[in-house]
Amino acid sequence: MVQTYLRSLQDDICTQLEALDGGRRFREDLWEHHSGGGGRTRVLEGGDVFERGGVNFSAVEGDMTPKMLQVLQVAPRTDAPVRFTATGVSLVLHPRNPRVPIVHMNVRYFEMTDGTWWFGGGIDLTPIYVDQQDARSFHGVLRDACERHGADFYPAFKRWADDYFFLSHRAETRGVGGIFFDRLGDGEGFEFERRFAFLREIGDAFCPSYLPIVRKNKDLPYGQRERDWQSLRRGRYVEFNLVHDRGTKFGLETNGRTESILMSMPPHAEWKYDFRTEPGSPEEETQNWLRKGVDWG
Amino acid sequence: MVQTYLRSLQDDICTQLEALDGGRRFREDLWEHHSGGGGRTRVLEGGDVFERGGVNFSAVEGDMTPKMLQVLQVAPRTDAPVRFTATGVSLVLHPRNPRVPIVHMNVRYFEMTDGTWWFGGGIDLTPIYVDQQDARSFHGVLRDACERHGADFYPAFKRWADDYFFLSHRAETRGVGGIFFDRLGDGEGFEFERRFAFLREIGDAFCPSYLPIVRKNKDLPYGQRERDWQSLRRGRYVEFNLVHDRGTKFGLETNGRTESILMSMPPHAEWKYDFRTEPGSPEEETQNWLRKGVDWG
Repeated sequence: MVQTYLRSLQDDICTQLEALDGGRRFREDLWEHHSGGGGRTRVLEGGDVFERGGVNFSAVEGDMTPKMLQVLQVAPRTDAPVRFTATGVSLVLHPRNPRVPIVHMNVRYFEMTDGTWWFGGGIDLTPIYVDQQDARSFHGVLRDACERHGADFYPAFKRWADDYFFLSHRAETRGVGGIFFDRLGDGEGFEFERRFAFLREIGDAFCPSYLPIVRKNKDLPYGQRERDWQSLRRGRYVEFNLVHDRGTKFGLETNGRTESILMSMPPHAEWKYDFRTEPGSPEEETQNWLRKGVDWG
Repeated sequence: MVQTYLRSLQDDICTQLEALDGGRRFREDLWEHHSGGGGRTRVLEGGDVFERGGVNFSAVEGDMTPKMLQVLQVAPRTDAPVRFTATGVSLVLHPRNPRVPIVHMNVRYFEMTDGTWWFGGGIDLTPIYVDQQDARSFHGVLRDACERHGADFYPAFKRWADDYFFLSHRAETRGVGGIFFDRLGDGEGFEFERRFAFLREIGDAFCPSYLPIVRKNKDLPYGQRERDWQSLRRGRYVEFNLVHDRGTKFGLETNGRTESILMSMPPHAEWKYDFRTEPGSPEEETQNWLRKGVDWG
């Protein structure tokens, strides 16, 4: 049931992104996981709007290994061998125009044969140049989606995103945040059906939260200065994904499909030693927004 | 004593690299570590031969924290509070010409006030296009340096490098390897003086192992195809350093100086989904060399 929804979510998002891009279509690769199940990776490269992006569906299963128990920090409720199923949709889009933000979305469901289950996910926006109006409209859609399910969801999951999408080694957030949540299982009056309804709400909120921002900005002019800053910001995106992102680490450590995991990498990235933005520049203004606790709601 | 040697090693290597580059000089930044000591970071960007490179000296000290004990997997020999000193020279060079290999060298010394001490280090070569003669001359210099100190040093430390400089998520080595060693303390008939002599031998072997390869190849012609392949190989270098490299992880996790640690990043890197080399191409030939156990000695 969760898998059926997630497959149709992948289809729907890809259809809308292709229509918006106009230039390229997604390439699809079907693959099998070494321990069972598999995935449907879709990647678009060299598009008019999206320079590189991926929208992945996967549903893998297998025996819970000691490594997985350790990485997930979970203890089975039984002494018998336990199997798991993990399914989700993950996407990262790297637009060509530096006026269009990078975006990431993930919605996932995990269950073990001992009866443990949970949902998790998140959406976050990484502008190359922060446009306050865009950041507010993005958070507004996520806030509305959250509020239909719990009065405290948006503030709690917004704060969680600030803490999660954070480059501690740079003391800066990845972008203007969004929402992040994990291990939403039963309890607090929530059963499976209500949790699943929330996950669908978030999955369905992706297009309304992001596509209007793409449409508004995709034809804005830019030059080499903006592309250079984009290259450095993409370098930070690489740092976050390879150093901090739990999904990436977990995938690489448990022998996941590398090309599907690393579809999140930008087409191109740069590093400069000790780069400082010019005082009063638009780049400095963006840098100043990369902090926790900004009220975008 | 170790610090005196390492400072002069940094000076000597920088002088030779600047003379070879001809275009740019190293910029020097002095910095202090939050818990004591500090470093001397030297970075060169936009040179004629070296597009980006860093040669760092550091000597930091402080109290051994539970985090450090855990990361280093070491148990103090006393119940009293223990302090540490860690000193080393690290370098990574990203040449402009794809015919000149990327190189990395690290020599380091660690001691705690409980009497524990060890040396560690390594040198490894990452060609964009493998030139067998260059790989053999590089390994030859390292083998000779090792053999002056122990008959089994080269085979043991060459194998260690194959295992360490390995991208498990790609099932490929970073390049053609070199040597790697860690935790060389007392024991096996080796006291401090003999270990330190070996470290100096390795530090002093860097220039003779690498600079002749630079001189031989730096003016070879290349085009866009070679630069594109270089960009992808640099992407793999980024993956290794951020996902696997212990020094990078340790530095970022223990609040080290980020800009000094990440001087190892290339100036620029690219990712392409599911890139395959053309059958029979020079790129495929290089890809086929990226495996453990090749006898370059």
